[in-house]
Amino acid sequence: MLFRSLLSSAAKPRSPQPLAAAVLLRQLGTMAAAQAAPAAGSQREAFRVAVTNTLERRLFYVPSFKIYGGVAGLYDYGPPGCAVKANVLAFWRQHFVLEEGMLEVDCPCVTPEVVLKASGHVDKFTDLMVKDEKTGTCYRADHLLKDFCKDKLEKDNTLSPEKTSELNHILAVLDDLSAEQLGAKIKEYGIVAPDTKNPLSDPYPFNLMFQTSIGPSGLSPGYMRPETAQGIFVNFKDLYYYNGNKLPFAAAQIGQAFRNEISPRQGLLRVREFTLAEIEHFVDPEDKSHPKFRDVSSLEFLMFPREQQLTGKSAVKLNIGQAVSEGTVNNETLGYFIGRVYLFLTQLGIDKDRLRFRQHLPNEMAHYAADCWDAEIECSFGWIECVGIADRSAYDLRAHSDKSGVALEAHEKFAEPREVEKFVITPSKKELGLAFKGNHRMVLEALEAMSESEALNMKSALESKGEVEFKVCTLGKDVTIKKNMVSINMEKKKEHQRKFTPSVIEPSFGIGRIIYCLFEHCFYQRPGKAEDEQLNVFGFPPLVAPIKCTVFPLVKIEKFEVVAKKISKALTTAGISHIIDMTGNTIGKRYARTDEIGVPLAITVDNTTSVTVRDRDSKDQIRVEVDEVASVVKEVTDGLSTWADIMWRYPAHTASAAEEEEASET
Amino acid sequence: MLFRSLLSSAAKPRSPQPLAAAVLLRQLGTMAAAQAAPAAGSQREAFRVAVTNTLERRLFYVPSFKIYGGVAGLYDYGPPGCAVKANVLAFWRQHFVLEEGMLEVDCPCVTPEVVLKASGHVDKFTDLMVKDEKTGTCYRADHLLKDFCKDKLEKDNTLSPEKTSELNHILAVLDDLSAEQLGAKIKEYGIVAPDTKNPLSDPYPFNLMFQTSIGPSGLSPGYMRPETAQGIFVNFKDLYYYNGNKLPFAAAQIGQAFRNEISPRQGLLRVREFTLAEIEHFVDPEDKSHPKFRDVSSLEFLMFPREQQLTGKSAVKLNIGQAVSEGTVNNETLGYFIGRVYLFLTQLGIDKDRLRFRQHLPNEMAHYAADCWDAEIECSFGWIECVGIADRSAYDLRAHSDKSGVALEAHEKFAEPREVEKFVITPSKKELGLAFKGNHRMVLEALEAMSESEALNMKSALESKGEVEFKVCTLGKDVTIKKNMVSINMEKKKEHQRKFTPSVIEPSFGIGRIIYCLFEHCFYQRPGKAEDEQLNVFGFPPLVAPIKCTVFPLVKIEKFEVVAKKISKALTTAGISHIIDMTGNTIGKRYARTDEIGVPLAITVDNTTSVTVRDRDSKDQIRVEVDEVASVVKEVTDGLSTWADIMWRYPAHTASAAEEEEASET
Repeated sequence: MLFRSLLSSAAKPRSPQPLAAAVLLRQLGTMAAAQAAPAAGSQREAFRVAVTNTLERRLFYVPSFKIYGGVAGLYDYGPPGCAVKANVLAFWRQHFVLEEGMLEVDCPCVTPEVVLKASGHVDKFTDLMVKDEKTGTCYRADHLLKDFCKDKLEKDNTLSPEKTSELNHILAVLDDLSAEQLGAKIKEYGIVAPDTKNPLSDPYPFNLMFQTSIGPSGLSPGYMRPETAQGIFVNFKDLYYYNGNKLPFAAAQIGQAFRNEISPRQGLLRVREFTLAEIEHFVDPEDKSHPKFRDVSSLEFLMFPREQQLTGKSAVKLNIGQAVSEGTVNNETLGYFIGRVYLFLTQLGIDKDRLRFRQHLPNEMAHYAADCWDAEIECSFGWIECVGIADRSAYDLRAHSDKSGVALEAHEKFAEPREVEKFVITPSKKELGLAFKGNHRMVLEALEAMSESEALNMKSALESKGEVEFKVCTLGKDVTIKKNMVSINMEKKKEHQRKFTPSVIEPSFGIGRIIYCLFEHCFYQRPGKAEDEQLNVFGFPPLVAPIKCTVFPLVKIEKFEVVAKKISKALTTAGISHIIDMTGNTIGKRYARTDEIGVPLAITVDNTTSVTVRDRDSKDQIRVEVDEVASVVKEVTDGLSTWADIMWRYPAHTASAAEEEEASET
Repeated sequence: MLFRSLLSSAAKPRSPQPLAAAVLLRQLGTMAAAQAAPAAGSQREAFRVAVTNTLERRLFYVPSFKIYGGVAGLYDYGPPGCAVKANVLAFWRQHFVLEEGMLEVDCPCVTPEVVLKASGHVDKFTDLMVKDEKTGTCYRADHLLKDFCKDKLEKDNTLSPEKTSELNHILAVLDDLSAEQLGAKIKEYGIVAPDTKNPLSDPYPFNLMFQTSIGPSGLSPGYMRPETAQGIFVNFKDLYYYNGNKLPFAAAQIGQAFRNEISPRQGLLRVREFTLAEIEHFVDPEDKSHPKFRDVSSLEFLMFPREQQLTGKSAVKLNIGQAVSEGTVNNETLGYFIGRVYLFLTQLGIDKDRLRFRQHLPNEMAHYAADCWDAEIECSFGWIECVGIADRSAYDLRAHSDKSGVALEAHEKFAEPREVEKFVITPSKKELGLAFKGNHRMVLEALEAMSESEALNMKSALESKGEVEFKVCTLGKDVTIKKNMVSINMEKKKEHQRKFTPSVIEPSFGIGRIIYCLFEHCFYQRPGKAEDEQLNVFGFPPLVAPIKCTVFPLVKIEKFEVVAKKISKALTTAGISHIIDMTGNTIGKRYARTDEIGVPLAITVDNTTSVTVRDRDSKDQIRVEVDEVASVVKEVTDGLSTWADIMWRYPAHTASAAEEEEASET
């Protein structure tokens, strides 16, 4: 569960990592090179505007319910965005579910209160909110304080060194401030409602779950799930049985999750409804090795361990095998998933130099977590947490076990029965009855429920002093236990199996965030023929490209249209998504339109026996026979060959002067 | 939108179609043959119990949140169910979105009130409910009345012919009864709460949408969408532009929908959260021809036109081309989709003899709908509506256009400007001002808003009588219009284009219902070796089978396990979902386990160079080289070859006596 982590601000104040100039230039593509260099912030802004304008204009995504003015934090994926999403999810299924033999499940979004009470969401899944005292408009308290500090630091030249350091300190500890501390700072700095300048209320917690009611009675509160993980935990028993009562195994789920954000911002990065893909890998807490670890152990990539962050250093390139063996990463299974996530993201098209694995600092992690790493991707908004990979120990299964009364545990049968020493607590019913009368049952149960260490303490106290004070919660008071009331002994027992609650290692993917970062990483501009003209290109790998290929008849004549339709039919049979553009636009205009939605290959029908195939990024062209073209396209888009492989095999096609001319008319 | 239709009971009382004995026998498979023939109802019940037991035991689906006692109407798909669902959706995308070049979109489930107010859901998406007056337990009023009537008809031998006919009449008109009529009948028959025998409240409407609140203020009501269609309608303008401002085009969406059912029953068939796949095909209302209609026009299948239903006849096999040309089906586009839905369902594995297309009766259709057909599939619950295919005319786009003020329309540019005759209404401001003073604006607007026929009537009345009474709604009264106050004339105008609101043809698929029916149609039992032993088989086509292939080492020795792992790797590379069963169970037991989750092919590793491949349904076995086996499996599971094609090419493998023996030990 991306629980704590997604609550904290996406661009983490704890690990400030300003965009290096080199990175920025790469991001800005030729645009940066073509322009004078303004401040990094405004360049980043300009790049983002260019990307999002293209995305919205070409219907990758649009604000939902636009004709009614939209709703903050809700977006629709239009046709190309929807296709990219489907491709990302299909690859996720192939890379994780199929290759790792995971058990995929599909649980409802509507969730009864008891489940989210057990998981802690009903009580703790909150953000601190303040209200404009006159208009009632709501704001996130930490956002207002953060904006205030940042603004002061950027614009106020009169700040004393003490003040500067104070404001920086606040930014660093922002996520750890209590409601009282936040409120005190807001008062101290005189922060008011940004829209009206009205005074603000004290901060108070707002639960981020969408609440509803299940059934007609109005008596069964429910919520739209804030994550998919709980559906897996509550099914642990069945899934363990399905897996032949064997560990380790992983379950996976792809589905919608919902968070009623107070004030959504940053476009697709912080939304009220989103697709999560989550894995819960259940493992014996005493053996977190992974049989396939050596498949990833030689990978090297940017990691940002706790140590580096605390000493103010940058992320470093590490070998994952070494990171595990040196203890930087807690265990092999966690390391295996970090490696697999790296492969997943870079194969999608995420730039490996703008991807890092950042370890959670001690104050970010839940008390029960053994170790957590976030895959963070750098985009124009900063470093964005896109995948959380956490070793959550036995927390979730224990929580549901306690609440439901159903044991969620695993067994290890011993080949040979083992002799173990165990404390055995034997209360004397007779003595307890005499001493405590009507209360003796409660005392008896409390004695039996003692932990090993409590029993050990009592044993030694009874042996030394003959009696001991003992708190019985169900009675709400202490009672005096005497030596004759209970015997506590170490006994040897034969055990045939070991029962334990498995640990869970959870890689959790924010699909919308990954897709948005992918959009930015794949986007570039190149000059058109006209002065100052910039053509937009999404350089998607074929794997994620929304449409694999376009088919254009060069001119609007019947014999070319017949060939185009024939090719289209062959592409459909081969399962290749494509569009056929019969408009009379110039070929240059059609290429530009196709580049802008990231179509890797274009087939121009300029002949009835052979056609021109053009590569989006290099703009190279080759000539291929009509009957062969679908299988050539399939070879490239299935990833069996690259364009470079194909180029060798076919004659090059040189664009005529006329075509070149046309290309400038976009 | 499966709006009206899914509200009415799934097993429609209007078209009673008892399961024919022949159908039942096919359903019951060998079970029916092996047993003495009890009443059809209890056989059907027994069959359902056998299917659902297998489904739940093998984790195809389970009640959600089971460890907390579950929630009625919510189910989880476990690993094999989830895989079947993913396969059904992938095929839907291939068959509809890709082959038809549809524009797929992905919109949020959380929907603001204004959208569902415009669509009519806020006011009309209700069921009539009654409450136990003492306990507050809620029931659907029509369900109670229906159960009462059915029970009486089945069990009361003393019913008079009049009473019998009265009860049958109620069952026939149940969906049309008002709250008052339902309440009166419940009183008249003395129907009480089934669980407590307490008296019931009067029926009152309960809105079936899950309500929530968007944002922190509590001032923006929202709902979980009851269908995905609205997300497409509100995006019409952008999608039309995306399609180059051309009609026809279709948009499609797959996603979750939610209905807070009063008392869910019938397992997966009536649930509170479900996956819909919806298509909105936008078309010029003056031209509903379809360019690909001839691709389906020769198909023949069971249809159940209005005429047949009203005259008490059965469904008949019709040719869809003829049904359209004779006007049974309203238009080619509707007919095309009926044909495509038939192909989709039967290719999935739905038995064509238990599939019919039933036309809506006039009282079932919304007033605006041109024609509606439901694909109904017969299962043990009766005939279940699984796909609704409706020509909804311009209703939805007009509703959102009116509410949002954004024109949702299409344009047809004329090649040549056309001369058209139009009524032009020209009120005289001066005369109206003199006559009506302060009210003259309202009269003027009312005159301008007249329809063509109203204007025509006024013109002739003014010409004959010199004056006419005219109702002005905004004034709430009639006024007298005289000849000099308005001129109404036919004028010739040149028009360059035609503006119109497109009609929409909507095929809407209840994916969970289709999957449940598929489970029943694919399930059969065959005798095991032991007396009375019945082995369960899901005879899924490879296309939908959750796992395509299993790999078993015949015995637990290392050299077989090495080969098994090698084959497993080759299958993964080929993208074939499979499991590798290393348990020491007998081969018979392992075959039975694999048959029970519908795996089409099993590879038994009984040699290091060649292996045995076994077909689930025929139990035939062939021998294939280890290096070749992955590609053979792929050929069959991709649908390029059938088992029969493959059988020819490889030597048969005859099971040894030992294996036969083992097969009985399941």
